[in-house]
Amino acid sequence: MTRNELIFEIRKKQSFLCIGLDPDLKKIPNHLLKDPDPFFSFNKAIIKATHSFCVAYKPNLAFFEALGLRGMESLYRTVDYLREYYPNIFVIADGKRGDIGNTAAKYADAYFNELNADALTLSPYMGKDSIDPFLKQDGKWAVLLALTSNAGSADFQMLSLSNKGTEKEAKLFEEVIRVSSSWGNESNIMYVVGATQPEWIQKVRNLIPRHFLLVPGIGTQGGDLETVCRLGMNDEIGILVNVSRNIIYAGSSSDFAEKAAAEAEKLQLEMSHFL
Amino acid sequence: MTRNELIFEIRKKQSFLCIGLDPDLKKIPNHLLKDPDPFFSFNKAIIKATHSFCVAYKPNLAFFEALGLRGMESLYRTVDYLREYYPNIFVIADGKRGDIGNTAAKYADAYFNELNADALTLSPYMGKDSIDPFLKQDGKWAVLLALTSNAGSADFQMLSLSNKGTEKEAKLFEEVIRVSSSWGNESNIMYVVGATQPEWIQKVRNLIPRHFLLVPGIGTQGGDLETVCRLGMNDEIGILVNVSRNIIYAGSSSDFAEKAAAEAEKLQLEMSHFL
Repeated sequence: MTRNELIFEIRKKQSFLCIGLDPDLKKIPNHLLKDPDPFFSFNKAIIKATHSFCVAYKPNLAFFEALGLRGMESLYRTVDYLREYYPNIFVIADGKRGDIGNTAAKYADAYFNELNADALTLSPYMGKDSIDPFLKQDGKWAVLLALTSNAGSADFQMLSLSNKGTEKEAKLFEEVIRVSSSWGNESNIMYVVGATQPEWIQKVRNLIPRHFLLVPGIGTQGGDLETVCRLGMNDEIGILVNVSRNIIYAGSSSDFAEKAAAEAEKLQLEMSHFL
Repeated sequence: MTRNELIFEIRKKQSFLCIGLDPDLKKIPNHLLKDPDPFFSFNKAIIKATHSFCVAYKPNLAFFEALGLRGMESLYRTVDYLREYYPNIFVIADGKRGDIGNTAAKYADAYFNELNADALTLSPYMGKDSIDPFLKQDGKWAVLLALTSNAGSADFQMLSLSNKGTEKEAKLFEEVIRVSSSWGNESNIMYVVGATQPEWIQKVRNLIPRHFLLVPGIGTQGGDLETVCRLGMNDEIGILVNVSRNIIYAGSSSDFAEKAAAEAEKLQLEMSHFL
C-alpha cells in the first residue's frame, strides 16, 4: 500500500488506529481452544469486528512463532484472510528483523512476497545494508525502531553521542533517524516512536517532518493519545497509533469480539477529533 | 548445552567451527530440487558429511522464512534431525530477534522450547528487558550482536559516545558489551564480533575476558583465522568461528557434501593448531 493510499484510508475511516494481533493461548477465550486453529479463529473474529475502526493490523510474529509450525500456519492464514476480505487494510509484520545484506534480502522475500505484508518492523543496529533490501519495492515499507516504548529503551537508544562528525549531543535514536532517513524516503520508511516518551515525539517530528511514525504504548503502557496527536501529527496525518492488548483482550468470554470492537470504536471516535 | 559441555566438545573434536546453514534454492545442487523437502535433503547431507569437524550449526532463519511455511518445516526438520542424531552439537538459531519483555519471552519459547535450539542471536537495540527472558534457562544462550561483520556495522555500532556517565570515548558496541554483560554471565551470553574487524577483537577480549565470541566473516567476507585466534582466544577457548557459504557451497553438483566436508576438515585442522 502506498503512502497516498494509506492517507486516503485514514481520511475515509477517520482513524489512524493500528490493531496489534498478539494471540496467546493463555489469554484468548476458552471456547476457542477446541477450534482446529484457535489463533486464526480469534484473529478472524477480532478483524471482522474491528476492521471498520482501524486502518492497519500488526501481527506480532513472536506470538505466532512461539507455537512453532502451527503458529506459522495461523499467521499465514490470518494475513491471507486480511488480503482476501479487507484488501485496503495496511498489514505490518512486527518481526524487528535486521541482518547483513544477503540475509536481509531473504527477510524482504519472506514478509513482502511470501507473507504479502505491506511492512516489516526492523532493528537498525546493523546499519544501511541491513535495511536497503526493504526499500526496493513500491508500496512496501521498512518500519525502523527508533525510540521504543519499553524500559530498556533507556539502555542504548538514549545514549548521548560525542559531537565528532555527528549532531551535537544527539541521542543514538536521533542519529538513527537522521542517518537512516537518507537511505529511503517518506514513502518507504516509517519509524517506531513510543507514546511513553512524549517529550521526544516533537523532536522527532522536527527531524523528519513528513515520515509516518508508528506509535506503540498508548493504554497498557501508559501513553496518552491527545499528547501523541498534538506532538506527532503533521498535515498528512503522519502517525499510526498501535493498540494491542487493550483492544484484543478487552473481553475474555463469548462476547470478546464485541468488546474489542467497542474499544476500537472508542479510539476511532477520539481519533476523528484530531483529523 | 552448558559452557563446560561446549568446551569439552571443542577439546574432544579439536574444533571450534560453527557451520552456518543458509539454504537457498538458487544455490543448492539441482538434483535436490525434485526432493519433497530440498532444504532438508541439503542440510542433512551437509550435516552427515561435516558433523565430526564442527561443534555447532547455525541455521540462518531468514533463509527458511523466505520459503514461508515450507521453509519453516525444513527448519524444524533440520533441528529435529540434529537433536536426534547429533545430540552433542550446539545449535544456534540465527534470528537476530529483539522486542519488549512480554514479546521477547515468546521468542524464547519459540526457539529454546519449541525449536529446541541452544542459543538465539539477538539485537541489543531495545535494551535489558528485550534480553532478560533469554537468560532464565540453564544451558540456553543469548548471542548478542556487538560488532558485526558487514559494512553497515560502521553506521551505528562504531559511533563514539560522549563520556557523560559512560566509558570515555567508548564506541556504541563497546557500551553494549559493557552494559549487557552485567545482565547475565559467561554461561548464558555470547557476543557476535566480526572477523572483519580484527583491531577490535582484542579490545573486546579485554572488556570480557571469559565470554565466548561468535565470530563470523572468515572466508567470503575476508577475515583471517590466525588473527582471530591470536586476538580472540582465551584459556577456555572462548571463540566459535562461523563459516557458512565457503563450506556449504564449496561444491554444486552431486559431490557437494564431500566438498563441504573437505572445506570443514581443512578448517578443523587449522583450528587444531591453536588448541
